[in-house]
Amino acid sequence: MDTIKVKSSRRSELIEVTEQVEEIVVKNKVNEGACLIFVPHTTAGILINENCDPSVKEDILKRLNDLAPLSLNAYTHVEGNSDAHIKSSLVGTTLSVFINRNKIVLGKWQGIFFAEFDGPREREIFVNVISQ
Amino acid sequence: MDTIKVKSSRRSELIEVTEQVEEIVVKNKVNEGACLIFVPHTTAGILINENCDPSVKEDILKRLNDLAPLSLNAYTHVEGNSDAHIKSSLVGTTLSVFINRNKIVLGKWQGIFFAEFDGPREREIFVNVISQ
Amino acid sequence: MDTIKVKSSRRSELIEVTEQVEEIVVKNKVNEGACLIFVPHTTAGILINENCDPSVKEDILKRLNDLAPLSLNAYTHVEGNSDAHIKSSLVGTTLSVFINRNKIVLGKWQGIFFAEFDGPREREIFVNVISQ
Repeated sequence: MDTIKVKSSRRSELIEVTEQVEEIVVKNKVNEGACLIFVPHTTAGILINENCDPSVKEDILKRLNDLAPLSLNAYTHVEGNSDAHIKSSLVGTTLSVFINRNKIVLGKWQGIFFAEFDGPREREIFVNVISQ
Repeated sequence: MDTIKVKSSRRSELIEVTEQVEEIVVKNKVNEGACLIFVPHTTAGILINENCDPSVKEDILKRLNDLAPLSLNAYTHVEGNSDAHIKSSLVGTTLSVFINRNKIVLGKWQGIFFAEFDGPREREIFVNVISQ
Repeated sequence: MDTIKVKSSRRSELIEVTEQVEEIVVKNKVNEGACLIFVPHTTAGILINENCDPSVKEDILKRLNDLAPLSLNAYTHVEGNSDAHIKSSLVGTTLSVFINRNKIVLGKWQGIFFAEFDGPREREIFVNVISQ
């Protein structure tokens, strides 16, 4: 198991980690297989989306703010970050990508993003490479 | 493949199953690898979130009720549980966690929860342990 | 790695691909293991839900349209398909199912659906079969 360190600088932020995942695959010398990615946090997530136009990231984050607003009378969790817990469960904390010829397989426009919902913080991502 | 039995007592409920998953990993004597978790139901899901303060669970369930209300004029499914089907697809029915030294790897505050959206019912979770 | 070709005919559409996934499992002669499914697109997803009453699919798509409307003043992405990117991240682009006795394991009412959010288009799904 390998670990990627991520440092977020905003409360809500999509941080691309495609290169760091790629490096782990290369380091582990796995030619064919799968790469499992796991976020060990309850107010963050992991997702794959467009890494070309940065406005896509902003629109995703903005809409997630509508779906789980920062403040809602209905929230009971006293830490005041229920929105981040909800976003984490909407987006998910685990992902799998394929490895082909020692490279991760992604679509033309895809990047892997750590989704920070309660930053700024120092975070970790665990990566497990499974050989076929 | 192992099976965890879950009995829900409310229509909407997050039921922690971390210990049951852990037992399966121990029983299968897998030291390093991954554990895949699969929910064979269309009105339930599986998620990882905080297992410390129970108000987090309640806030997640409450907000999911806003995102997919029980009754909406737009729903056409006659069984009256469209909300549960929608929540299932938002939260997801599959999850993977890592195994390290015969234990599942979770963050400090994380627990694995079966997400009941159309209970009370008797449910199943399938678990598959992959050795590395 | 195998590829399933999908052709959508509407902007938003759930297209069942259970049979195509099953064929790949049979072709690869894997008796026990797991099947990873990956969508290499940023405006589409993959999900498991009911494949019996087609009204379930319609209710899911309709509610996703409410959660990520086609037009919102807040969107900044100039291509005009931010809703599809958001839906993709809500639903997810990756899935794993179990293989038991050379068949995929699904619940009684479950089917695997490619989720088109920016069609009509020709799309691909990657499938990776891992033997145990």
